[in-house]
Amino acid sequence: MAKPLVSIIMGSDSDLTIMKAAADMLEEFEIPFELTVVSAHRTPLRMVQYAVQAADRGLKVIIVGAGGAAHLPGMIASLTILPVIGVPIKSANSIDGWDSILSILQMPGGVPVATVGLNGAKNAGILAGSILAAFDPIVSAHVAVYKKKLEQEVLQKVDSLKADGWGNGFDV
Amino acid sequence: MAKPLVSIIMGSDSDLTIMKAAADMLEEFEIPFELTVVSAHRTPLRMVQYAVQAADRGLKVIIVGAGGAAHLPGMIASLTILPVIGVPIKSANSIDGWDSILSILQMPGGVPVATVGLNGAKNAGILAGSILAAFDPIVSAHVAVYKKKLEQEVLQKVDSLKADGWGNGFDV
Amino acid sequence: MAKPLVSIIMGSDSDLTIMKAAADMLEEFEIPFELTVVSAHRTPLRMVQYAVQAADRGLKVIIVGAGGAAHLPGMIASLTILPVIGVPIKSANSIDGWDSILSILQMPGGVPVATVGLNGAKNAGILAGSILAAFDPIVSAHVAVYKKKLEQEVLQKVDSLKADGWGNGFDV
Amino acid sequence: MAKPLVSIIMGSDSDLTIMKAAADMLEEFEIPFELTVVSAHRTPLRMVQYAVQAADRGLKVIIVGAGGAAHLPGMIASLTILPVIGVPIKSANSIDGWDSILSILQMPGGVPVATVGLNGAKNAGILAGSILAAFDPIVSAHVAVYKKKLEQEVLQKVDSLKADGWGNGFDV
Amino acid sequence: MAKPLVSIIMGSDSDLTIMKAAADMLEEFEIPFELTVVSAHRTPLRMVQYAVQAADRGLKVIIVGAGGAAHLPGMIASLTILPVIGVPIKSANSIDGWDSILSILQMPGGVPVATVGLNGAKNAGILAGSILAAFDPIVSAHVAVYKKKLEQEVLQKVDSLKADGWGNGFDV
Amino acid sequence: MAKPLVSIIMGSDSDLTIMKAAADMLEEFEIPFELTVVSAHRTPLRMVQYAVQAADRGLKVIIVGAGGAAHLPGMIASLTILPVIGVPIKSANSIDGWDSILSILQMPGGVPVATVGLNGAKNAGILAGSILAAFDPIVSAHVAVYKKKLEQEVLQKVDSLKADGWGNGFDV
Amino acid sequence: MAKPLVSIIMGSDSDLTIMKAAADMLEEFEIPFELTVVSAHRTPLRMVQYAVQAADRGLKVIIVGAGGAAHLPGMIASLTILPVIGVPIKSANSIDGWDSILSILQMPGGVPVATVGLNGAKNAGILAGSILAAFDPIVSAHVAVYKKKLEQEVLQKVDSLKADGWGNGFDV
Amino acid sequence: MAKPLVSIIMGSDSDLTIMKAAADMLEEFEIPFELTVVSAHRTPLRMVQYAVQAADRGLKVIIVGAGGAAHLPGMIASLTILPVIGVPIKSANSIDGWDSILSILQMPGGVPVATVGLNGAKNAGILAGSILAAFDPIVSAHVAVYKKKLEQEVLQKVDSLKADGWGNGFDV
Repeated sequence: MAKPLVSIIMGSDSDLTIMKAAADMLEEFEIPFELTVVSAHRTPLRMVQYAVQAADRGLKVIIVGAGGAAHLPGMIASLTILPVIGVPIKSANSIDGWDSILSILQMPGGVPVATVGLNGAKNAGILAGSILAAFDPIVSAHVAVYKKKLEQEVLQKVDSLKADGWGNGFDV
Repeated sequence: MAKPLVSIIMGSDSDLTIMKAAADMLEEFEIPFELTVVSAHRTPLRMVQYAVQAADRGLKVIIVGAGGAAHLPGMIASLTILPVIGVPIKSANSIDGWDSILSILQMPGGVPVATVGLNGAKNAGILAGSILAAFDPIVSAHVAVYKKKLEQEVLQKVDSLKADGWGNGFDV
Repeated sequence: MAKPLVSIIMGSDSDLTIMKAAADMLEEFEIPFELTVVSAHRTPLRMVQYAVQAADRGLKVIIVGAGGAAHLPGMIASLTILPVIGVPIKSANSIDGWDSILSILQMPGGVPVATVGLNGAKNAGILAGSILAAFDPIVSAHVAVYKKKLEQEVLQKVDSLKADGWGNGFDV
Repeated sequence: MAKPLVSIIMGSDSDLTIMKAAADMLEEFEIPFELTVVSAHRTPLRMVQYAVQAADRGLKVIIVGAGGAAHLPGMIASLTILPVIGVPIKSANSIDGWDSILSILQMPGGVPVATVGLNGAKNAGILAGSILAAFDPIVSAHVAVYKKKLEQEVLQKVDSLKADGWGNGFDV
Repeated sequence: MAKPLVSIIMGSDSDLTIMKAAADMLEEFEIPFELTVVSAHRTPLRMVQYAVQAADRGLKVIIVGAGGAAHLPGMIASLTILPVIGVPIKSANSIDGWDSILSILQMPGGVPVATVGLNGAKNAGILAGSILAAFDPIVSAHVAVYKKKLEQEVLQKVDSLKADGWGNGFDV
Repeated sequence: MAKPLVSIIMGSDSDLTIMKAAADMLEEFEIPFELTVVSAHRTPLRMVQYAVQAADRGLKVIIVGAGGAAHLPGMIASLTILPVIGVPIKSANSIDGWDSILSILQMPGGVPVATVGLNGAKNAGILAGSILAAFDPIVSAHVAVYKKKLEQEVLQKVDSLKADGWGNGFDV
Repeated sequence: MAKPLVSIIMGSDSDLTIMKAAADMLEEFEIPFELTVVSAHRTPLRMVQYAVQAADRGLKVIIVGAGGAAHLPGMIASLTILPVIGVPIKSANSIDGWDSILSILQMPGGVPVATVGLNGAKNAGILAGSILAAFDPIVSAHVAVYKKKLEQEVLQKVDSLKADGWGNGFDV
Repeated sequence: MAKPLVSIIMGSDSDLTIMKAAADMLEEFEIPFELTVVSAHRTPLRMVQYAVQAADRGLKVIIVGAGGAAHLPGMIASLTILPVIGVPIKSANSIDGWDSILSILQMPGGVPVATVGLNGAKNAGILAGSILAAFDPIVSAHVAVYKKKLEQEVLQKVDSLKADGWGNGFDV
C-alpha cells in the first residue's frame, strides 16, 4: 500500500459522514491518504504527537474537520510546517456553523489555516489535489479531468432542460 | 511572596491593556496571582507544559484572554482539571469580537470554559474571586465589600442626579 | 441526604430536558445538589429570596439555565457572592440562541456570569465540578477520571475506524 | 410641581446623554416626569422596590434605558403592571448594540417590554406621549402638533433643495 | 357589542395563526377589539385610510403584525397619533426573523413603534392591556390577576418537580 | 415563437424549483423569455460567451439565480450592459442565505446587480416586467392588472375573516 | 429643460451626501432627472401622491435612498408600476446597515424593489442607465463608454504598479 | 530574475496596502513572485486570460485579495487547476468584512478557494510558502525558521513581562 501523502483527521467519528467526501476525492485522484480521529480537547497530547510527526512521516497536506469551537485545525497548523486545510463542520453543537467557521478561519498572523466552506470536505479533497498537482503530473491530470467533468455535467443539464421544453436561442 | 492561586495568561502582550483589569481585581481581593504570555499558536509546547503543571504548582483558577480564532482558553481547559475562565478579546484581527466569543464559548461537551463578556477581564478577576471565596472567608469578605461598593456608587449617582435637578418622588 | 453544594435552577420546567445533563454530571461526581424552577420574570420575588439565601444555605455554586431575553443568571449573580454558571438555552422563543447567549454573557463590569456554550448544561455540571475540585480531593479525583474517560472514548473510536479499514501509519 | 406620570430610569448615569432625549420630548408634551438611576445588577433590591411602588406612586408609564446584557427593562416589567418602554443603549460594553436589543426585546410570553430602536430615547418619550394621549386631550394635542412639525420640517427641506437647484416637476 | 378599543391588523391572513394570541389576551382582559387584514404593499391606500381614521373611530391602541420587510407597523405609526405595537413575525419569506425585527424596531426619530419579541403576539395583547390598564381599573385588575396566574403556574411546576424527586432545601 | 426579451439563468438545475416562479410571472405578462443553466464556476467560458452575446441577441433583461458564494449575477453584470436582476437562493450549501445575499448585493461601484429578496424569483419576474412596461404598453397593462389582483386577494381575505366572525367597524 | 425620466428621492436631506452619486451618473449618461425629499414616516401622504403620480408624469425609473427601518423604497414600489431601485443607506441610526438592507431587500412576493449594495447610490444611477439603455441607443452608448472607462482605469493601475517595480511576466 | 512561482493579484490597487504583507512573506522565504491588478468586474476578459495562462506560465500558487462581493478568488479558481488562496479584504464598501468572507469562502462543491482570515494577506504568503515547502527543501527551511522566530518573539515578551515585575513561578 502506498505511503499516505495526505492525512484526513477529525475531532469525532460523528464527523465522518461529512469528511468522507474528502476521502472520496483523494481516491478519485489516486492520492494515498490516511484517516483517523484526533481530538484537540479530549486527546490533546495525541494531537501534539500527531502534528509534530506528520512531516517526518512523509505527509504533504493535512485536512482537518472540526465543529463548534473548532481548535483542531489551528492547533495542528501551529505544530507543523505542512499546509493545513480546515473544514468547518456544522455539527450538532454549532450555531448554524458560524462558530465553526470563525474559529478555523480567523487565525492570527503567522499560522494560516486554508479554510474551505461550511461542510466543504469535498473541496478540501480537491484543494489537496491541486496542491499536489503542482508537483505531480498524474495528480495534475486527474484534477484537470475532474474539472472537465464538472463542465460536462452542466452541459448535460443544459441539454436536458432543452429536452424538457425550456431554453431557446443560445447554443454553446 | 505568597504562592499564586490564580494565573492570568494571554496570547500576546498586546492583550495586557485589557487583561490588567483582572490583575487589579485580584489585587483588590488580596489574591496572589501570576501573569504571563502563553501563545497557543506560536508556543504550543510551552502551552502544554503550562497547563499540565498548573494544578501541581498550586494554582486554583486559570484566567485566559485571547482574541480572533481564540484557542488558548479551550486548549488550556483540555489539559488541566482546574476551572478555566475565558476572556474574549476584541483584538485588532477580530471581527467585532464575534470570532473571539464563539471560539471560546462554544466548547464541546466535556471541556467547559467559563466565558465572560467581550473584553470582560475585570469580571474574570471577580469570578475568580467568587470561586475562591466559596472556600476562603477573607476573599469572601473582600468580594462582599466589593459588591457593596458597587451599590454605593450607584446611590451616589442617584444623589448627584438629584443635586443636578433631576428626579423627584422616589427615595430609597 | 447530603446538604446540596450546587444548585441547578431554570426559568421553566421545559428547560429540564436540557438542564438534566448538569444534574447527571454532578451525580457522576457525587456532588450533592438541588434543582428547582425559579423564574426571573414570573416569580421575581422568589428569585430575590432564592439568591439572597443561597450562600447561607451552604451552596457553593449556582447553575442557571435560561433562554430568550435570559435575565435569570445575571440577576442571580447580582444578588449573591457565589459563582454563577449561566447556560444559554435555545428555547422555543429564542432566535437561534443568539438572544440567550448575549443576554447571559454580556454582563456589565462588576457582576460576572460564567457562561458556557449554547445548551451546554453538561459543561456547566463539569465546570461546577472543577470549581469544587480545587478544594475537594474526592471531586478532584472524579473530574480527573472523567477527563481520562473522554480520552479513552476517542482512542476506542480510533481503533474502531482502523477496524473499519480506515487509517494507516500513525499509532499513538 | 406636578406629580410625575412618567418615569425615566437607566442603569448608569453614563446613559443620561442618550436618555435625556426622552426627557426633552416629555417636556415638549408638558408631561410631568421623574428621572433617576436604578441598576438591575448593582442595586437589585432598590430596583425591586422602585418597580413594586411605581403604580401606587401614580406613575402611568416607565421608560427604561439599558445596554449590554440589559436586564433592567424586563425586570421592571416583571414587577409592575405598568407599561414599560425599553430603550436599548449601545453602551461601551455592547457588541454593536445587538446584545442590548436582544436582551430587551426577546421577553418571554407574559411579560412584554415595548422596545424602541437602538438609542431611541426620543421615540420612547414620544411613545409615552402617545400612550397618555389616548386619555388626555392636552397631551393628544401636543403629540398631534409634534407630528405636524415633523412634516413641516421635511417640506422646508424640499423647498431648500429646490432653492439649491435640485428637483423639478413635482409640487406638493 | 362594545366599540373596539384595540385593533389587531396584519399583512396577510397567514399571520392569523400567530396574531390570534393577541386576540386571546384581549378577550381574557375583556377588552373589545377588532381584527382584520391590511397590507402595506398590496393595499397601500386601504392602509392609509385605516390609519388615518383609527383615532376618530375610538381606537386607543393598534397592534400590527408583519414579517420580512415589514413596513405595516411603521407606516401605520406614521399616520396616526395612537400608540402602535409591532409584532415581528417569522414568516415564510423571513431570514430567521431578523428582517422582521429590524424593519419594525429601527424606526427613525419621531415615529416610534412599540416592538415586542419575534412572534410575540401574546405579549402585544398584554402590552395593550397594560396601556389601557393605566386608565381603566377593570382592565387593571385583569392584568394584575394575569400576572398572579403566571406566578402560580411557576409555583405549581416547583411542586411538581419536587413530587418527581427533584429539589430539596429551598421553600418559598 | 417570439424572440426572447428576458433571460432566466441559474447556476444549477436544482435551482429551477425556485427560479420557475420568475418564468411563471413572465408568462403571465406574455413576455417571451429563455431559460437555461450557466455556471460561473463550472462553465466559466460558457458564462463569458453567454453574457457577451446577450445584448446582441436582443435580450433586454437578464435574471440570474445563484446561491452560496454566488458569483454568476455579478459576473454576468460585468460582461453586459443589460440590467441584471440577481436572485439570492438559499441553496443546500448556503448559510441561511446570508452568503447568497451578500455575494450578489454588495457589488463594487460601477457594476450594479438589481438584487431581490432571498428566493425572490417571483419578484425578479415582476421587476423584469416593470422594466419592460416602461416602454411597452401591453406589458404595462399586464403589470397594472397584476397589482390590482394583489389588492383584490387581500380584500377577499378581509371579507372571509369577517365571515369567520372577526373584524367589526372598519369598512373599506 | 428636458422632462425627467428618472427620479431620485430620499427620506432626509442628510442622505444627499450619499445619493448625489446617483445624480452624478445620470448626468454623465445625459439622462434628465429630478431629485427631492419624500419621507415615508414624516410625510406619508406626500409619499402616496408622489408615487401615484410618478408614471403619469413621465418618469420611467424611481431611485429611492433610505436608512434604518427603511420603508420608503418598498412603499413607493407598492404605489407605482415603475421599477423602483432601493439604496440602503448606513445612516446614523442604522445598525451597521443591516436594518437598511433587510427592510429594503426582503419585500414580499408581488412588490419587488431592485436593491443595490449599502450606500450604493452610484450603482443605482448606473442601473437606471442600464434600464433606459435597453430602449435608448444614446444612453446605451453612454453606458458602454462608462464600462470601457472602468476597464481603462484598471489597466492604467496595472501599468503604474509595473512602473513602481511590481509585476513581471503577464502582459494583457 | 527568477521566474515567478507565486502570483499575487487583487481587484484594485487600493488593496495593495493589505496585500503587500503577502509579498513581504514571499520575499522572506525567497520565493519569486509577480504582483498585479486583475479586476473580476471591470476587466473580466483580462481575468479569464490571466487564470487560463497561469499554470502554463509556471505559476504554482495564486494568491487573490478582494473585498465586498468578492468574486475574483472564486472565478480564478474556476479557470485554473492551481491552488488559489483567497484573502477577504475589509474594503471601504464592505459590511464589516462579512460579505468579503462569505463570497470567497462559500464556494460550491468542485471549486475550492483556500480562504484565510479577514485581511490575512500575511497568512496567505505563509500558506503559499507551506505549499511550496512540501516540495522544496530551501523554502521548507525558511518556513521552519519563521515558525521558530514566532516562538522566540513570544519568549522575549515573557521575559520582558518578568522584567516589568509581572509573572512569578512558571519557567519554560
